[in-house]
Amino acid sequence: MLLLLSAVAAVKKEKMRNLRLDIEYDGTNYAGWEIQNHSVKTIRGEIETTLEKITQEKIKITVASRTDTGVHANRQVANFKTTRSIPPANFKKALNTLLPDDIVITRVKEVPLKFDARKKAKSKLYRYIISNCEVPLALKRNFCWWVPQPLNLPAMKKAVNYLVGTHNFTGFSASGGPSFNKICTIKMANLSAKQKEIKFNIAGDHFLYRMVRNIVGTLVEVGKGKIKPERIKLILERKDPGLAGPTAPARGLFLVKVRY
Amino acid sequence: MLLLLSAVAAVKKEKMRNLRLDIEYDGTNYAGWEIQNHSVKTIRGEIETTLEKITQEKIKITVASRTDTGVHANRQVANFKTTRSIPPANFKKALNTLLPDDIVITRVKEVPLKFDARKKAKSKLYRYIISNCEVPLALKRNFCWWVPQPLNLPAMKKAVNYLVGTHNFTGFSASGGPSFNKICTIKMANLSAKQKEIKFNIAGDHFLYRMVRNIVGTLVEVGKGKIKPERIKLILERKDPGLAGPTAPARGLFLVKVRY
Repeated sequence: MLLLLSAVAAVKKEKMRNLRLDIEYDGTNYAGWEIQNHSVKTIRGEIETTLEKITQEKIKITVASRTDTGVHANRQVANFKTTRSIPPANFKKALNTLLPDDIVITRVKEVPLKFDARKKAKSKLYRYIISNCEVPLALKRNFCWWVPQPLNLPAMKKAVNYLVGTHNFTGFSASGGPSFNKICTIKMANLSAKQKEIKFNIAGDHFLYRMVRNIVGTLVEVGKGKIKPERIKLILERKDPGLAGPTAPARGLFLVKVRY
Repeated sequence: MLLLLSAVAAVKKEKMRNLRLDIEYDGTNYAGWEIQNHSVKTIRGEIETTLEKITQEKIKITVASRTDTGVHANRQVANFKTTRSIPPANFKKALNTLLPDDIVITRVKEVPLKFDARKKAKSKLYRYIISNCEVPLALKRNFCWWVPQPLNLPAMKKAVNYLVGTHNFTGFSASGGPSFNKICTIKMANLSAKQKEIKFNIAGDHFLYRMVRNIVGTLVEVGKGKIKPERIKLILERKDPGLAGPTAPARGLFLVKVRY
């Protein structure tokens, strides 16, 4: 019996595969990535359940970024292990057939067993979109934050520059997240405006809970002239979330890309 | 008593105003513009009901284009008459406060009593968006038609050129619409592609029922190589809808602008 069990284990071990998923989703109708309880729909819950239907195995997905309720992703990255020999293209087809149409698997790729979508991520790029139109937008209502007040863009751009580099971002974090290393290296941050749409891009090695939305909330306060651009520097130095602006709404935030 | 009634009527007549509404909407959750019955939600139904709440009068809206179920508008135009003296800016504010967030009034303007959003329209610009990505889009799923097959763009562009000018468009119309004049003058039609997004723009003096969607369905057949670009010319000449491609889905269609 023991011999049989170890033989099966050996076969299973031999066959274990690691698959990377690239995922686009509209987060509007989900309580975020992470499974919380069975009364709310989550992105992870939908994908895991679907993978379990396909593989008839218990599946555990690891993800690059556990996005919050209402946050979107252009290209989230996750991975899972399976002993099934289904080719990646068939996994992709089956997943996209079975998943709801607000979650799309854009790529399935076989990766080395040691690939871990969270631990191996070198940097992430987030984008936040603000609509500065006088009226709200009907067509893009779930994909931007509507701020009708006039915004001082040069002041906001000046504020953005203080973010670049290696800093302790405690002042822009919220309680509720895992107790990570609070030191983040922001490799790139910029703000651009086209007509009445303002785009804020930020790339860094890691991000704290609600960090991007707290930064955006603060940038908008700078844009409204309520605080000076130098406040960003002060929040980083003092590590005091009380100095930051309100948290910007989730619907304007997109995880654009993860680099490995 | 008679004297009193005619005095009120005179006052009412004096006070009659005509207001133009510019409207943006996401048509996804509506059974189109036109009121059908009370079990389905329509754009007109939502706006008329809201105007009746605001004015406490019976309101009848006239619209430039009665868009179909699932069709969107960047800038639809409508008008209604009222005896209330509420300023346009207050109408706009009240409407946007009370309407669901997938319908936005972008402008309210006092116009001469003879202005009629339908009859006075000189031309309309429609846009149709096709996603030619290999996978469907999660974020734009309600705002494009996903066609994953390779499309021959030069052939589609050649086909588009046959549309420009004054033609009988019976071959691209569907039964169910009002029995209009079937002769339409297409002032502009073009097709452009950026990355994997194909945009088709068409402007004309008037459009028949499902005309744009039937044209797009035919253009996609041209793109797939199933029919030649010259088929467009033939459909116009023969006035035979049987020669046209399938009707493209509503979700890719936008009423962009109405000119007066």
